[in-house]
Amino acid sequence: MPKVSIKGQQMPESPIRKLVPYAEIAKKKGHKVYHLNIGQPDIKTPEVALQAVKNADISVLEYSHSAGFESYRTKLSQYYKNHGLPIDTQDIIITTGGSEALLFAMGSTMDAGEEIIIPEPFYANYNGFSTASGVKVVPVISGIETGFALPPIEAFKKLITPKTKAILICNPGNPTGYLYSKEEILKLAEIVKKHDLFLIADEVYREFIYDGEEHFSVMNVPGLEEHAIMIDSVSKRYSMCGARIGCIVSKNAAVMSTAMKFAQARLSPPTYAQIASEAALDTPQSYFDAVISEYKDRRDTLITELQKIEGITVATPKGAFYCIAKLPIDNADKFAQWLLESYDFNGETVMVAPAAGFYSTPNVGLDEVRIAYVLKKDDLIKSVQILKEAISVYNQK
Amino acid sequence: MPKVSIKGQQMPESPIRKLVPYAEIAKKKGHKVYHLNIGQPDIKTPEVALQAVKNADISVLEYSHSAGFESYRTKLSQYYKNHGLPIDTQDIIITTGGSEALLFAMGSTMDAGEEIIIPEPFYANYNGFSTASGVKVVPVISGIETGFALPPIEAFKKLITPKTKAILICNPGNPTGYLYSKEEILKLAEIVKKHDLFLIADEVYREFIYDGEEHFSVMNVPGLEEHAIMIDSVSKRYSMCGARIGCIVSKNAAVMSTAMKFAQARLSPPTYAQIASEAALDTPQSYFDAVISEYKDRRDTLITELQKIEGITVATPKGAFYCIAKLPIDNADKFAQWLLESYDFNGETVMVAPAAGFYSTPNVGLDEVRIAYVLKKDDLIKSVQILKEAISVYNQK
Ligand SMILES: Cc1ncc(COP(=O)(O)O)c(C=O)c1O
Ligand SMILES: Cc1ncc(COP(=O)(O)O)c(C=O)c1O
Repeated sequence: MPKVSIKGQQMPESPIRKLVPYAEIAKKKGHKVYHLNIGQPDIKTPEVALQAVKNADISVLEYSHSAGFESYRTKLSQYYKNHGLPIDTQDIIITTGGSEALLFAMGSTMDAGEEIIIPEPFYANYNGFSTASGVKVVPVISGIETGFALPPIEAFKKLITPKTKAILICNPGNPTGYLYSKEEILKLAEIVKKHDLFLIADEVYREFIYDGEEHFSVMNVPGLEEHAIMIDSVSKRYSMCGARIGCIVSKNAAVMSTAMKFAQARLSPPTYAQIASEAALDTPQSYFDAVISEYKDRRDTLITELQKIEGITVATPKGAFYCIAKLPIDNADKFAQWLLESYDFNGETVMVAPAAGFYSTPNVGLDEVRIAYVLKKDDLIKSVQILKEAISVYNQK
Repeated sequence: MPKVSIKGQQMPESPIRKLVPYAEIAKKKGHKVYHLNIGQPDIKTPEVALQAVKNADISVLEYSHSAGFESYRTKLSQYYKNHGLPIDTQDIIITTGGSEALLFAMGSTMDAGEEIIIPEPFYANYNGFSTASGVKVVPVISGIETGFALPPIEAFKKLITPKTKAILICNPGNPTGYLYSKEEILKLAEIVKKHDLFLIADEVYREFIYDGEEHFSVMNVPGLEEHAIMIDSVSKRYSMCGARIGCIVSKNAAVMSTAMKFAQARLSPPTYAQIASEAALDTPQSYFDAVISEYKDRRDTLITELQKIEGITVATPKGAFYCIAKLPIDNADKFAQWLLESYDFNGETVMVAPAAGFYSTPNVGLDEVRIAYVLKKDDLIKSVQILKEAISVYNQK
């Protein structure tokens, strides 16, 4: 019997994969499960995007250009310019989700055995894309004490070897909610220039920033043009995760022509989804204002409630819609399983994502969970109440 | 300045990429260009698929299951069973085009430096997916004299090394139009079992078979369950290339759970496209009857017309909608460029795909072109007439 690849064996499973059967158990028991574990927003997709698909006059559903509709790229470039990002049409290749953009970025810049430095905790699928690309992830730990701020630049320097090709950041961060300051980005810019590395910035949560803070993009650093690669997506911005549209953006012509070869091999990004995404660019500002204020409310509610739990540590997220909470428990994996398998509070329980899956270093973050605030405020309040009761029951076992 | 990856530099460009600027020149001159070079059908997408998208009642466009809609996979399994293929729901993972299924198949079965044997000429993007996966393509030549029949099994045996992990076939073939016989598939089955290899069969053109011949799938070989991986796609079947939906199919549980890890990393296939693809399963048989008879007519017309060209060799395709023609010219690359750049017949010219790009062995097929018969009959007749005139002008230069 032929064997699967070693790479395939090493491909990580999603951090919540192990919990899925236990969620089934909870459901079979008739328990209501509040999902604090997923990044699928409940926010409505803009009408203008949905209507564009309904109204599309298609008789042959054709391949599009491998880089995506020219009209969409042009309009997207204008969107970026309106947001202060000097991005031209030819700097953009439309991809099948930010996911494919990450794969193209890694494939275009790194060969098997080369290394990418990533501050951890990080979006768990960076591990999957790295493994698929044969690339080694070199983590640099950021801690909950600092709210997951950029680790000291010396920590990066120590990790740079002749095999290092890139630094990857997520800004604002999933799972941390941390927003890098301009100063932090400039420090990273300096080090990548000095060591001739790429700086790949996953900015898919760019629009989700609270408290009047401002997002500073890698595309805004003068002199970084040849180093900066930005990853973007419509998934969260317009709550249209199912579209599967993102893009890879760079001013480095060699990177773009290389990424284009990957794009051509897979022919084109999905046509319906491009129609929706192009139309979504006409979403009125009022939509975003409402969404941001909703998320801010949720965040405030969540953090206020969480802080009522004795022994908890939680960093207030400045962006995205996740936070990491350090719980007064022995092991978040066991706890999360127990919540689903054995616990309920008046027939209800919660599902959280154990944070260890967001670290690449073994045995780190074992008592941490990631909580996504993609639920309505009342549900968040109930969820945290359940969590609080559960922790005290769990610790009395 | 940081450099792109070696892999990225090695990623091949599409065989017609070089011709695109010359097609622009022809258009600028006001010449009409008949596109014999592309596999984008002009056939209408089934109404039932287009309507399903129009009628979809979506308010949040969510991620789907990473393996695709359960309902779609179940219905697709039934479709296969109706076509005599014993494929269950759990044997299917829905992918973003057959393209992604090919990537998942390679990633799940092969590590960097391992080898895959492919009869050539083959679908050019197999080169791209192999390069992206770090896998080495080992070609085995099939010739126009035999109509691109399976090379003698001894030719495969000679190429098998400890690094060989799989044989990849395209059945029926792009670019050859060749349909493997049951006997040929059984021979391949024997050799992959003997040498513990995977047999990956790209069957995306399965429905396009002419002259009452029957398609024999790798999924129909008893005892091959652990070896067989089938690649499929809705792109050509329903003329909905822009949907970007395909699937990877196997009874090998280890392969499927590995492919599933790749699928989870990229989250999900496109939602709108799955709605269209699921609905497309209700396409009436009359649609296929009409399409097949249209393609058969086109094929007959094309081959009859081509055979009027003195010195041409062309194998009558038994399936798909391509053929390879060996032309009485020195070099198909130069000829194809000249057709666009310097030639016209009453203001019209043709674009063909030089076949060298479909071979992995250098300097093979230099006088061959691939012709796709995705144009209407009258246009095919005109195109071949232009080709015929062009050849004689070209050879008198
Ligand atoms: C940080 C981050 N990057 C990229 C992605 C990929 O999203 P998509 O492929 O839907 O654009 C996600 C999705 O959750 C994410 O959280
Ligand atoms: C032989 C073959 N396999 C796979 C594909 C990929 O098609 P898609 O990704 O649109 O399913 C094509 C497209 O032309 C093809 O010809």
